[in-house]
Amino acid sequence: MTVRRVPVVLMRGGARRAAFFHAHDLPNAPRARDAVLVRAMGGSDAAGERIDGLGPGQDGVARMVVVSRSQRPGCDIDFMCGTLAAGAATIDWGGPCGALAAAVGPFAIAERLFAGAEGPTRVRLQHVPDGTRIDAYVPVSAGEVSEQGTFVEDGVPFASAEVRLEWIEPSDAPFPTGRPRDVLELPDGLAIESTLVAVDEPMAFVRADALGLSGRESAADIDRNRRLLERVEALRLQAAVRMGLADSAQAALRVRAPMPALCWIARPAAYRGTAGAEVAAESVDLLARCVIGGRLQVAPGGAGSLALAVAAAVPGTVVAEVARTLPGVPTRIGHPSGSRAAGAEVSSRIGADGRPRWRVERCLLSHGARRLLTGEVHVPEGG
Amino acid sequence: MTVRRVPVVLMRGGARRAAFFHAHDLPNAPRARDAVLVRAMGGSDAAGERIDGLGPGQDGVARMVVVSRSQRPGCDIDFMCGTLAAGAATIDWGGPCGALAAAVGPFAIAERLFAGAEGPTRVRLQHVPDGTRIDAYVPVSAGEVSEQGTFVEDGVPFASAEVRLEWIEPSDAPFPTGRPRDVLELPDGLAIESTLVAVDEPMAFVRADALGLSGRESAADIDRNRRLLERVEALRLQAAVRMGLADSAQAALRVRAPMPALCWIARPAAYRGTAGAEVAAESVDLLARCVIGGRLQVAPGGAGSLALAVAAAVPGTVVAEVARTLPGVPTRIGHPSGSRAAGAEVSSRIGADGRPRWRVERCLLSHGARRLLTGEVHVPEGG
Repeated sequence: MTVRRVPVVLMRGGARRAAFFHAHDLPNAPRARDAVLVRAMGGSDAAGERIDGLGPGQDGVARMVVVSRSQRPGCDIDFMCGTLAAGAATIDWGGPCGALAAAVGPFAIAERLFAGAEGPTRVRLQHVPDGTRIDAYVPVSAGEVSEQGTFVEDGVPFASAEVRLEWIEPSDAPFPTGRPRDVLELPDGLAIESTLVAVDEPMAFVRADALGLSGRESAADIDRNRRLLERVEALRLQAAVRMGLADSAQAALRVRAPMPALCWIARPAAYRGTAGAEVAAESVDLLARCVIGGRLQVAPGGAGSLALAVAAAVPGTVVAEVARTLPGVPTRIGHPSGSRAAGAEVSSRIGADGRPRWRVERCLLSHGARRLLTGEVHVPEGG
Repeated sequence: MTVRRVPVVLMRGGARRAAFFHAHDLPNAPRARDAVLVRAMGGSDAAGERIDGLGPGQDGVARMVVVSRSQRPGCDIDFMCGTLAAGAATIDWGGPCGALAAAVGPFAIAERLFAGAEGPTRVRLQHVPDGTRIDAYVPVSAGEVSEQGTFVEDGVPFASAEVRLEWIEPSDAPFPTGRPRDVLELPDGLAIESTLVAVDEPMAFVRADALGLSGRESAADIDRNRRLLERVEALRLQAAVRMGLADSAQAALRVRAPMPALCWIARPAAYRGTAGAEVAAESVDLLARCVIGGRLQVAPGGAGSLALAVAAAVPGTVVAEVARTLPGVPTRIGHPSGSRAAGAEVSSRIGADGRPRWRVERCLLSHGARRLLTGEVHVPEGG
């Protein structure tokens, strides 16, 4: 039995960590490739500890990214992101990459798959499983990726350089109902105006004041407010049906991932963030509080932020009503633990029925990224 | 700001994983050295995720081992093991290394700190914080560490080569009470014969039949048996006082680590292991079931196994009464998830009071070890 040494770079993208590989260092055939990767992570360990390999993160999920030069015209780099869940024997390549996409450009430049220019270097990425196009703008100095900087984001205790991601034509149907505004109904019959958006993941937005809220709430305010959480859940289930995610509220309850997330939004106002720092009203364009699985999230995820930015850019949505978004400028979203910026460019044309058809031309989101370790993973062959 | 690249080897020792470093790749001063290591792991992250570094294992603890050539006569290699607990800002170098000690010899040979001979190569190790001497026997072939083999152990889904560890004179007072046998008392007044041992960590042994048990119990049998767990806890608290770990049972309750563990032991018998496989009576020399913190352990740890081996080697202990241990041969301990072997050589002399004084000359325990990744960790300097 021999040990195969496979070059690997452990990278952080946003608040995620993954093992990055060159496709050319792995077998071509997907089954053989995945066998090497699973063994590198510690094998198809039923107990989930994966102690004889690189192992999972604290959430029990091992993450891998495979990168190569792209053959697609207008693209520089292909990538795909795999997850090996606790107890799973196979890698799931179908899920979203999330913040890890921000580390692909820096990997490509550092590993000489792409030549870095001086300043922000554009790397044109293709997410292979679904063909999603993302342009990454990677800060480069003297041909090397600049990792140090002043960009801060939730869940990452150190500042780093900013990698700007620009999704190209991410959606030509951001509103699954075809409308920028839908009316939902609370159990007591009260009508609630909402905007239902699906850019990456489905999201439902309502105004905070429609629920008697301010948008300045903290997790402590919400997590024990049973009545509110019940109302939010009722809205969420209705939204799921409207968005075509389930045939009925009953069916929506059975969907494993609690989609859509429901967020209430409000005009900018000052509040105290989770870590104790004051968030000034002038520093945000919008307040958002999102509930997933019955809990207030510390911050909307990447998909939620993009959906907010899209809704803020479309006149007539409940988000545009309260957001102080300026055309062409990312929306600064004030969330429980701080703020983050996300941008969207939208366009519309008039459909055959005389109603506008919206289309998302670009979405913008930034993350930090950093090489944590470069080396070779030792993979025993034949088990 | 620059990035310091520090050579690192991720290694498995037994069912533990740690980042191994050469002392000469780190600053000499302990404070500066620890600052580099903490940052390499992801910083003193209050949230415990340590996402901007190598991060912790699934138990939330990041582990590091620092290795160098030894200056101590009769020693080849010095090592120390550090843990960075969830939320901790500083590294604890004082705890036991456990199974990670098995990876030190292979690291030393693979990294050319020590020349491997052909066959099992003895590497004389010193655990620096307490001066513990361990001889590691590392399988070597053509000058390289042999990592592949047939040795199996709990918590590790793959077989590997066996690294035999031999502790040199680990204890000259294995019985804290000075006696190989002490009488404890149950709340109902029933007297229970026990053996109280402290080799690495304190352990209390009683016979299974004294508690109306068989020694073949599984976690499912025990974890809901409230009355039994109460009796076990009462014995444990008494043992803690006898062993000088606490002034009173009340004080023993307040000790953070629930020491000693209490194990009941029995003559060999067949039983079904946790994973479903039958453990034959002929394959074990002793049955042991250990409770720590109110739960039956899947297997005694390294320290518990060594304590069992010591007690089995001393006539008059409750363990020697039931164990089928042969002189000079490791004791095969049958535990809930399978079996493991541990050995001990003891000697005695007669003290001034005419009673024997026991001394542990050697302890033996084997683990597998493997290099998982070789590379360089990227450590931003100045934060």
